Amino acid sequence: MQLFHYPLCPHSRFVRLALGEAGLDVRLVEEKPWARRRDYLEVSPSGETPTLLERFGLAIPGAATIAEYLDETYGEAMGERRLLPSLPSERVEARRLVDWFGRKFHDEVSRWLVHEKVYKARMSAEEGGGGPDMAPIRAARYNVKAHLRYVGALARGRRWLAGDRMTFADLAAAAQLSVVDYLGEVPWAESAAAKDWYAKVKSRPSFRPLLAETQPGLPPPAHYADLDF
Amino acid sequence: MQLFHYPLCPHSRFVRLALGEAGLDVRLVEEKPWARRRDYLEVSPSGETPTLLERFGLAIPGAATIAEYLDETYGEAMGERRLLPSLPSERVEARRLVDWFGRKFHDEVSRWLVHEKVYKARMSAEEGGGGPDMAPIRAARYNVKAHLRYVGALARGRRWLAGDRMTFADLAAAAQLSVVDYLGEVPWAESAAAKDWYAKVKSRPSFRPLLAETQPGLPPPAHYADLDF
Repeated sequence: MQLFHYPLCPHSRFVRLALGEAGLDVRLVEEKPWARRRDYLEVSPSGETPTLLERFGLAIPGAATIAEYLDETYGEAMGERRLLPSLPSERVEARRLVDWFGRKFHDEVSRWLVHEKVYKARMSAEEGGGGPDMAPIRAARYNVKAHLRYVGALARGRRWLAGDRMTFADLAAAAQLSVVDYLGEVPWAESAAAKDWYAKVKSRPSFRPLLAETQPGLPPPAHYADLDF
Repeated sequence: MQLFHYPLCPHSRFVRLALGEAGLDVRLVEEKPWARRRDYLEVSPSGETPTLLERFGLAIPGAATIAEYLDETYGEAMGERRLLPSLPSERVEARRLVDWFGRKFHDEVSRWLVHEKVYKARMSAEEGGGGPDMAPIRAARYNVKAHLRYVGALARGRRWLAGDRMTFADLAAAAQLSVVDYLGEVPWAESAAAKDWYAKVKSRPSFRPLLAETQPGLPPPAHYADLDF
């Protein structure tokens, strides 16, 4: 399998965690989501990352669609570690939270931080590159607090975000937060429960490759890779 | 079943079409998505529409999550008319397009038109109401052309958007376009193939209730409810 991804794309990270939990080996291919490379548009018409390319040639674009595919194809073999629960009410809750973090958290927090602090520094002038705008960064800093308190509220009532077992919801949320944390923008002091939950996800072996990566010219804060942050 | 919806919310319309195709009766409850009503936040923590309330009390928020739930719960009984295909590659394509229209088309076109032309006229000053801003409306008018050509390109190569049979992808796309069409903002002349495909979806019995509704003070254009537009 190949995964077209970008290292600080939170959706790409979600899929890397899901593949790691499923024990599936994948060859990573770095793709700049802003470049709209012609060959990449063939597999992902939106040009967005990530896209999973299956061994037999099927291209699966989009993190939530990949998650459904992985569950349908490899979920049964995962037994108790399956990432989509079997009860309808628990499936609803896991999908609600995958959508919450992949769309709402992304729209309100991570897309702005990643765009302003990562992508724009790597884009050419024609692509829209340049220095960061502070207005969206400030909005994201304001919004992340409410999201962190929401994670904390969920984590106080449950072992994992969607219930008693780890699901795609935990991986989607942790993937988004990991990118924001890499940029030093998670105010962990807002919620001890959110921090405890994140420490639990962060210590999964599937998380290690993400924590070990650094971006040239953009070092993460010292606590980023620390399991005891 | 009850559906908390807003008449010109495109996600709500997608679910109404899906319920109609499944032959499921539902009581519609109008919910203003901008109001963040306290009781509604109990069933839909994001405050967004729609939310399906199942007979036995399960609340299912979000159109894509509702679609998955409907397929898992009522899909088998639909036989050949099932809205999620069974082949993995076709499931990927249907979900890719549900995401394309529910997220990308919405972000680039319908959310701005609905917000500026519908919601703001109904919101109080404290809620952010007022006259429409032209800049997002102009951006949406520009973006809708490319989306319409994309629908046309898909429709030229296939009977339905995701393949040989009607799927959730057609309903998600038609729901988004129906709201934009209500506002007189679909440049149908851009693509004859897109128009032919839309005429086919629009003539489904599930579409009739949507076409019959009008909003006080905001009449649709004459062609809106015409099956031969």
